[in-house]
Amino acid sequence: MSKPKGFEKPAGVRDYLPFAVDKLRAIERSVLDCMAGWGYRQIMTPTMEYYDTVGVASSTSDQKLFKLLNNRGTTMVLRSDMTAPIARVVSSLLKEEPLPLRLSYHANVFRAIEEEAGREAEFFQTGVELVGDDSPDADAEVIALAVASLQAAGVKSFKIAVGHVGFLNGLLEDAVPGREEIQEALKDGLLHRDYVGYRETLAELTLSPQQRDELEGILRLRGGKEICGQALELSGNTLAQTSVRHLSQLWDALEDFGVAEHVMIDLTMIGDFSYYTGMTFEGYAAELGFPVCSGGRYDNLLQQFGRPAPATGFSLKTNRILDGVGGLAGEPELPVLLQYDAPNRKQAFTEAERLRGEGRSVLMRRIEGPADLLSAPESARKSGPLGVSYGDILTFVSF
Amino acid sequence: MSKPKGFEKPAGVRDYLPFAVDKLRAIERSVLDCMAGWGYRQIMTPTMEYYDTVGVASSTSDQKLFKLLNNRGTTMVLRSDMTAPIARVVSSLLKEEPLPLRLSYHANVFRAIEEEAGREAEFFQTGVELVGDDSPDADAEVIALAVASLQAAGVKSFKIAVGHVGFLNGLLEDAVPGREEIQEALKDGLLHRDYVGYRETLAELTLSPQQRDELEGILRLRGGKEICGQALELSGNTLAQTSVRHLSQLWDALEDFGVAEHVMIDLTMIGDFSYYTGMTFEGYAAELGFPVCSGGRYDNLLQQFGRPAPATGFSLKTNRILDGVGGLAGEPELPVLLQYDAPNRKQAFTEAERLRGEGRSVLMRRIEGPADLLSAPESARKSGPLGVSYGDILTFVSF
Repeated sequence: MSKPKGFEKPAGVRDYLPFAVDKLRAIERSVLDCMAGWGYRQIMTPTMEYYDTVGVASSTSDQKLFKLLNNRGTTMVLRSDMTAPIARVVSSLLKEEPLPLRLSYHANVFRAIEEEAGREAEFFQTGVELVGDDSPDADAEVIALAVASLQAAGVKSFKIAVGHVGFLNGLLEDAVPGREEIQEALKDGLLHRDYVGYRETLAELTLSPQQRDELEGILRLRGGKEICGQALELSGNTLAQTSVRHLSQLWDALEDFGVAEHVMIDLTMIGDFSYYTGMTFEGYAAELGFPVCSGGRYDNLLQQFGRPAPATGFSLKTNRILDGVGGLAGEPELPVLLQYDAPNRKQAFTEAERLRGEGRSVLMRRIEGPADLLSAPESARKSGPLGVSYGDILTFVSF
Repeated sequence: MSKPKGFEKPAGVRDYLPFAVDKLRAIERSVLDCMAGWGYRQIMTPTMEYYDTVGVASSTSDQKLFKLLNNRGTTMVLRSDMTAPIARVVSSLLKEEPLPLRLSYHANVFRAIEEEAGREAEFFQTGVELVGDDSPDADAEVIALAVASLQAAGVKSFKIAVGHVGFLNGLLEDAVPGREEIQEALKDGLLHRDYVGYRETLAELTLSPQQRDELEGILRLRGGKEICGQALELSGNTLAQTSVRHLSQLWDALEDFGVAEHVMIDLTMIGDFSYYTGMTFEGYAAELGFPVCSGGRYDNLLQQFGRPAPATGFSLKTNRILDGVGGLAGEPELPVLLQYDAPNRKQAFTEAERLRGEGRSVLMRRIEGPADLLSAPESARKSGPLGVSYGDILTFVSF
């Protein structure tokens, strides 16, 4: 292993130059403002958490957690999501606060990755948690807010796919009862949208024609509200039926909230977080080949921190939106260059302050003689990656 | 060592509840806007850096760096400041960019601490770097911007103490040449403002009366521009004289920039960063017993990353300002509570969207019957630490 060169940064992490920062900040602000409009208040938690508490409760697999030791030798992790830390805060600092609680966040999270894969080890999520409400209306609220947040982030065309982990669990428990390995293999196929693999796993099983129909039938359960009716016919399992009825009520609420056009029901979707217990959803942008948000209901997580409560929420995959979507930030106004010589410094600074008071960005440049004078704004600093040039040049000299 | 409980977070790190987040965000935004007005553009860098590059170049002592291993077994650190990462970026991604470069940041940084000391292991800094200008005007610009930034952060009364590492180094090299251990002991006394210890170290030395006068005299070198004249008389050392002349020119620029009233010269001040090479400064708020900002010139750091260039900058100690200073954020407007029953959900949501469009924060609450109705806004949720109550309650029900 060679020693890193001075200018190198670790793989999987990135620098954001000013243009990218402007765009990221514009998304961050617009989305958090949107969430505030829905009554969600912003919270911040530490980058480091105890491995034994938040680390274990998170849905991130152990080998993907960044671990380090504190001075006392206790293992800590860099947070891999914000859901578990917020569950900790709701159960500690906010334990006297009546439910429901609406909290929002914008935070960097960390996943140890295989460097070759080109995936990011540090990235931003912007999201909400609604704690203490188990109704379909609460699920509809977070989905409607996800729609509003994607719009606030500048994502123009997208679709939210909504599923329910209970439907699949009920179906599997009826069709292949107690055979956890097979259940996991089938779930894995659905999670990775590997329908060929799913069918292959099915083909290897000894099943009754009805069981086979049910398990193959799930692949067709994608569409509008009519899917709920089809799903109720497909499986008589109690958990499956309860889950579909919840989805049906959720759909009605989404219609009242005016966002049903952005939503489809997809009962093959189970969400990639182990703590989901109810409906789950993912948002896909038309321009992009991967999810731009994900969320779901997690009614069992809070009790791990000592305050049992139902909860639902989502997060935007803010980096993907940043990279994939036309920016919100307009072209920044070009700065004013104010050049001066020593005798005119005071007068120049007074003018700079006046312009700053008007909201202009003003750079000052001291010059020693006529040879230093800049006159053509566009020629100033074109060469670098920042591409900065000056809008106006003001000159305060005595020679 | 006992296993951490579910609700515990590591020592030295903190959760920010919504009131604190609102205040922190208001400071962050106001200060970054101020810096943008001076032509500084915002940059972001990764939380993790290579130990061998940024870790070693930082001014943080080795045992205070948080270290972890990546998948390849390379040692990484959590950044302990932003100056070294920005030096890396200026030398890599921005290496074609003409100088001078003006960059700003708002970032969390990390220091491993003795847990008992009650100090913070993760905290925020908001600052700038001005790279590629070695003039007194550049130093004056960052000091004047520090003044403007403290004002933007809501710090009402403060004083900036300015020193120069060259003056002290010149004085010591004349008085106790080659005796590095003693030089370090004397510097250490000054750094920690332990003037008793400084005098005790002096008393133990065999010195000529003139040497003793010079080294004791430095303790009196605090005041306005007149200090520069006194300092020139105190030591004839070339480095000391050059340094004082730089400070004198810096003072003239600060007068032209209209901020001299906030500044004092303090030649006992050497700054706590090992990479400082010229003027250094610290800001003290009247209300607080510790510095709220610090900065200085570091002309040798960039060359460690392959692009030699002079540089100067500062950072606000944003957490201290947050904790110590009356907030910028006004009282947040109380949210509207919009309660509805199922038949009126659509109408209620339409009204919620209308109010959100006007900039109001609106929470929705589904109720099942008259017993659920809330009527008194102030009685709603007084009990919790968030202290949330509702400004208005709007009701859409059919019963």
